[in-house]
Amino acid sequence: MKLWLTSLCAAACFSLPAQQLELNHDLAYKLLESLTVEVGPRLAGSAADARSVAWAQRHFKQLGYDKVWVEPFNMQYWERGQASLQVNAPFSQSLVVTALGGSIGTPFDGINSQVVMFDTLEQLQQANPADVKNRIVFINHALERDIRGGFYGGVVGGRARGAVEAAKLGASALIIRSVGSSNNRFAHTGIMRYDDDVERIPAAAISIPDAQQLSKMLSINPELSLTLHMQNNLPGTVTSHNVIAEITGSKRPDEIVLISAHLDSWDEGTGALDDGAGVGIVMAAGALLKAERPERTIRVVLFGNEEGGLIGARAYAAQHHQQLATHVFASESDFGAGRVWRFDTGFGEQALTFGAQLQQKLKHLGIAMGPNTASGGPDVSILKAQGVPVATLQQDGTDYFDYHHTPNDTLDKIDPTALRQNLEAWLIMTREIANSSVDLRL
Amino acid sequence: MKLWLTSLCAAACFSLPAQQLELNHDLAYKLLESLTVEVGPRLAGSAADARSVAWAQRHFKQLGYDKVWVEPFNMQYWERGQASLQVNAPFSQSLVVTALGGSIGTPFDGINSQVVMFDTLEQLQQANPADVKNRIVFINHALERDIRGGFYGGVVGGRARGAVEAAKLGASALIIRSVGSSNNRFAHTGIMRYDDDVERIPAAAISIPDAQQLSKMLSINPELSLTLHMQNNLPGTVTSHNVIAEITGSKRPDEIVLISAHLDSWDEGTGALDDGAGVGIVMAAGALLKAERPERTIRVVLFGNEEGGLIGARAYAAQHHQQLATHVFASESDFGAGRVWRFDTGFGEQALTFGAQLQQKLKHLGIAMGPNTASGGPDVSILKAQGVPVATLQQDGTDYFDYHHTPNDTLDKIDPTALRQNLEAWLIMTREIANSSVDLRL
Repeated sequence: MKLWLTSLCAAACFSLPAQQLELNHDLAYKLLESLTVEVGPRLAGSAADARSVAWAQRHFKQLGYDKVWVEPFNMQYWERGQASLQVNAPFSQSLVVTALGGSIGTPFDGINSQVVMFDTLEQLQQANPADVKNRIVFINHALERDIRGGFYGGVVGGRARGAVEAAKLGASALIIRSVGSSNNRFAHTGIMRYDDDVERIPAAAISIPDAQQLSKMLSINPELSLTLHMQNNLPGTVTSHNVIAEITGSKRPDEIVLISAHLDSWDEGTGALDDGAGVGIVMAAGALLKAERPERTIRVVLFGNEEGGLIGARAYAAQHHQQLATHVFASESDFGAGRVWRFDTGFGEQALTFGAQLQQKLKHLGIAMGPNTASGGPDVSILKAQGVPVATLQQDGTDYFDYHHTPNDTLDKIDPTALRQNLEAWLIMTREIANSSVDLRL
Repeated sequence: MKLWLTSLCAAACFSLPAQQLELNHDLAYKLLESLTVEVGPRLAGSAADARSVAWAQRHFKQLGYDKVWVEPFNMQYWERGQASLQVNAPFSQSLVVTALGGSIGTPFDGINSQVVMFDTLEQLQQANPADVKNRIVFINHALERDIRGGFYGGVVGGRARGAVEAAKLGASALIIRSVGSSNNRFAHTGIMRYDDDVERIPAAAISIPDAQQLSKMLSINPELSLTLHMQNNLPGTVTSHNVIAEITGSKRPDEIVLISAHLDSWDEGTGALDDGAGVGIVMAAGALLKAERPERTIRVVLFGNEEGGLIGARAYAAQHHQQLATHVFASESDFGAGRVWRFDTGFGEQALTFGAQLQQKLKHLGIAMGPNTASGGPDVSILKAQGVPVATLQQDGTDYFDYHHTPNDTLDKIDPTALRQNLEAWLIMTREIANSSVDLRL
């Protein structure tokens, strides 16, 4: 089944003219506002995703980019349906639940099972199958907060691989404590994976207050059972797009300075922090630098389907495999809109001197020098793996996991002042690299 | 149609023994925890409401109260169904919406109309009917926060009377900006009213970020239309109960010191702040004072169906009309669990000396003397209207409207230290009045 969802857009997407946006330091916010208000949530592969692709092309053109094009890629489409999680008697009540991205649904009558709780994915992996068989596995792993979101990697495994590990032991379904840091009663979605060799079971997340509630219930009544109903649609392969725009370099047009963000978002919020902010920052940065006639070409890439597993980035890397040597640099903004506090590089050894000089130009914004271990951002990490030099303007992500992947990721969570500081940092970094002839690979 | 929902409870409610709770200053929290975890949401008239009535009787008995009984009353039952609010093309997206309590549903196919926005109920009342007819009215009135929740009264009219005012002008439905103070993406429910002489139209609330979003959309595209789907059930008259328990006075048992809270809650949160905290405080206060053999009788009343419009309180006042002269005092805790910061009275002039002395005993808790204009609390205001002396231990409600009437009103929002301070204040106030012979009416 192949759906060309872009066709759904034809009538509606162009019914309003693009707003004329001014080229000033509010531009990142204005773009973010336009994207989140006029398009809103934009799940990869959906009709809204196609609207966001049209939105991006329209605005790139309006902002005066020299070239604007899209690159299609195929992807597996997944769409959230209704979900409910009911605690059965004697504590009968509903818990706040949402499907993990990619999860199958339940049978129509739901899954009604006792619950077995684990503190971590690792504890589940060591469980006795007799304790898990035919039960709903509940992984209750709390996420601590810090400026780098550094604890995320240690917790997110339960979301990504929990269903496979639970199914290996015969579980009927997986529910996880949301991989988030806020006690607001939102369940956090995010992508999960199946193994071809392991039975597929439904996987969902409950909010942090609900995880605490369920844990308390189980301490009073370990025999507690739940009923999970979930309908999701997995219609098959569809086409989505990376959107690409360039400011052609005035002296070395064949050398590409790639700055990027991802255009898709999860479906429940409006994707303001994840990653509308990044979209606004990099679209604005390229547009504002045009008047300076940068020496190298500035290529802005808005990747598609980051949330489904860097699908657009992988397509970009495959399509541009032969030209990656011309990519002198790549970076992505994809960690919300908190102030940039550190400049991390992923350069060759010789180029670290240039990196240190660049940091001096960022210093007045409160940005310190970081290590030479930058990934460049989720999508750009694919390019780094193929030898492209990268950097990361590290953002303060202390509250990022309060909001990301929840319905609460909305425009009002953005501090326009912090977003302006981000734009300023991206302008400096992009300008310096675009006007230099340094080889960051060396 | 008369439902006796208590019968639904018979099998499940008593399957676990009441926990043995210790008589110490954690008792209010332990009761609150037990109620919110084991019963959870308890919409007046629902099966969960009946479970909460059973829960309260069981715990009153376990805590050693001398008398425990229930008083039935009839009420109109209303039950929330599914609700969705869709922005139509070109900005197609879903907004977070919830039905207002008491609202009818929409036709099955929903209501699809253009929107007309008003800043306040008063602005709507002055509108030209031609601008409103067949449209969805959107009242976008923001609530400011303060320690007393003092702005609530000026905003809540849009929720209570908006549907009637909109319908008078021919509107097809009402949506309001949630009467809340948090930018978390929860819609706040709450009771609304119809007039017998005015057509009934559906009424719902959207979250504050969604109200901001809709307002931005309308500024770009004033022709914007919405589709509202909502199913609610209004099955008719059911029975609910006030739960009453007493510590019999050792010297003047016929003089009643009434302390109270309301047992029902809205259906989306677990009613921790509204009003599980109050339930915990007053149940604990009576239990802890028993050992002191108070001179007057302490009567703890857990009112039913406060949220539907003080229905249990009105039933109590009607049933006890002849005995209200024996009610020497009444007070209710129903403003969350923030620290008590002021002692307001509703006494006769002569009794103000006693009030001032009482405040001296509260002073070490950081509680100042307030004015003699206390309502006593929502339910108790009905008793005050019939001449019963009252007081209010004013709680810090700065964040109360962040949570109340939303799914986010859960146990984790309670600060146990603040709850202990509340209990301490209630113990002092109740003890002093129960051991005094002062006539607070004079």
